[in-house]
Amino acid sequence: MGLDTRVNCCPDGLVTDRKRRIKVLDCTIRDGGICNQWGFDHGVVRRVFEALVASGLDYMEVGYKTTDGLFNRSEVGPWRFCDESDLAQVIRPSPLKIATMVDLGRISPEDIPPCSDSAIDVIRIATYAHQMDDALRLLDHCLKQGYETFMNVMAVSTLAPDEVDTFLVQLAKSGIHNVAIVDSFGALYPYHVRYLVHKYMNYLGESIKVGVHFHNNQQQAFANSIAAIDEGVDFVDATLHGIGRGAGNCPLELLLFYLDNPKYDVRPILDLVEEFASMRDELRWGYHLPYAISGFFNVHPKNAMKRMATANRYQVREMFQSLSDQS
Amino acid sequence: MGLDTRVNCCPDGLVTDRKRRIKVLDCTIRDGGICNQWGFDHGVVRRVFEALVASGLDYMEVGYKTTDGLFNRSEVGPWRFCDESDLAQVIRPSPLKIATMVDLGRISPEDIPPCSDSAIDVIRIATYAHQMDDALRLLDHCLKQGYETFMNVMAVSTLAPDEVDTFLVQLAKSGIHNVAIVDSFGALYPYHVRYLVHKYMNYLGESIKVGVHFHNNQQQAFANSIAAIDEGVDFVDATLHGIGRGAGNCPLELLLFYLDNPKYDVRPILDLVEEFASMRDELRWGYHLPYAISGFFNVHPKNAMKRMATANRYQVREMFQSLSDQS
Repeated sequence: MGLDTRVNCCPDGLVTDRKRRIKVLDCTIRDGGICNQWGFDHGVVRRVFEALVASGLDYMEVGYKTTDGLFNRSEVGPWRFCDESDLAQVIRPSPLKIATMVDLGRISPEDIPPCSDSAIDVIRIATYAHQMDDALRLLDHCLKQGYETFMNVMAVSTLAPDEVDTFLVQLAKSGIHNVAIVDSFGALYPYHVRYLVHKYMNYLGESIKVGVHFHNNQQQAFANSIAAIDEGVDFVDATLHGIGRGAGNCPLELLLFYLDNPKYDVRPILDLVEEFASMRDELRWGYHLPYAISGFFNVHPKNAMKRMATANRYQVREMFQSLSDQS
Repeated sequence: MGLDTRVNCCPDGLVTDRKRRIKVLDCTIRDGGICNQWGFDHGVVRRVFEALVASGLDYMEVGYKTTDGLFNRSEVGPWRFCDESDLAQVIRPSPLKIATMVDLGRISPEDIPPCSDSAIDVIRIATYAHQMDDALRLLDHCLKQGYETFMNVMAVSTLAPDEVDTFLVQLAKSGIHNVAIVDSFGALYPYHVRYLVHKYMNYLGESIKVGVHFHNNQQQAFANSIAAIDEGVDFVDATLHGIGRGAGNCPLELLLFYLDNPKYDVRPILDLVEEFASMRDELRWGYHLPYAISGFFNVHPKNAMKRMATANRYQVREMFQSLSDQS
């Protein structure tokens, strides 16, 4: 007897229906790359690609695309650039859609070739709400070049309700395919997520898909994903073993357990857990108090990440007090 | 502007009202003791006690009370027994209520002195549903001796709905003060929790309090606590830095951040984080795949804990496959 039957809580099958519609985007190399300056070697990226293909996943975000010269290539690895020559070494034709993220201000239209000339299928534009006019111009270019497009409006937890309304109205008529609710600071609890999902879905209508990208500062990334799935979103971001900036993201393996969808096979993902678990101590994602505190106070994790690189990382009373005094 | 105001999602103040009614029980030494055979030295227990008092917490569970001779005292530390002589070295009179847990079958009525002769205020009876008749006899003795009483019916995720109904009917007329929903295996998701909270509250009525004790196998202990708070429970169990059996419990610091109740001061708890974080690598609670898999398959964590003690701990495909074949 399955757990749902035991606790007898889903007689109408609603939870199952909403799970079945979800598409999953793995952003292990892109968001996890923030932990190691995108320095994964080609073998790691190839193993992740093959595991995702074997699992039947929908999307793999393989890094950022960036204007050449903005970062020193001796300090920053290949997945900050996603050159076609690197992509060709790790991926092959498959049903898995390949995405890259572009940071508004770190990319020019001329850096984005026609989709038919690239290994990339999907461009995700990361922007802040106040840059939306520029983001929409970049979007137009990406659409003309033939890409599937996402708009990830970052740090939504810092915006007033009318600021969210404003960019959603713009996005509703923009031609974008997918819009993600992005909790960059790991500040949201499930009741915030439920509210935001309703708002995004109401503004964006039937033809634009809504997704979520959560951070795990307060151990809420997976729980917030469940809340969003329950409210009817279309896609969810996750990473292998939860790797990602600061506390990391929603662990892909937990999400696939939960979705329990026969179209996904979690076992190839499990085969990579040991490799990623071995990186965790050095790269320091996961549950650590500095991240929890920055998430609770709804601030960028950069200071928490600096603190985590010191021996005093857990001497957090002063950090708490300082943020408390400012809030 | 606070986050709730920003996302504008709680206009009726319901979330705040439900947070304010919560009492918190810290079970760091009792459940965390499962990780180290209750071997915390007296200094650690004294520091936890003083921090909880300074934080304004409601309950501290300081270990198990056990019939003498059932464990070898050279192998198992003092907090498996909670002798009055040990308690006297770590606690002093304060508003913090002191609880111990008793395992049905490992305690006799004669081991439980009158409350007025003991440093202990509260007895929590841990039982399985099928032992409820014996548990109720032990409860009668504890009530006669003058204790506040909790009944923790373990592994509720393994019971059929009518089995839960049966013990709740018995408990409703038992004289018990508090009943906890106990997710021993870390198997529940928030929608299960919401259903169970409704059921427990409906059966137990106004005069019996309902609480929750969650495990973090699937990173749901804190999220499940939030769901339970949202549905109106009266108390929540948590531990310092989430220490506890297997993946551990709901982290006390995250819970206090969330409750954001001026009656609690989280800072004395934060002062102990460094000490507990330093135990984590050795005692291996937290997010690890063997625990996640045992939680997902709704089985006891004992085999996952054995696996975590080996070098092959993350080679989990075979564990997943084996449990999948059995389910």
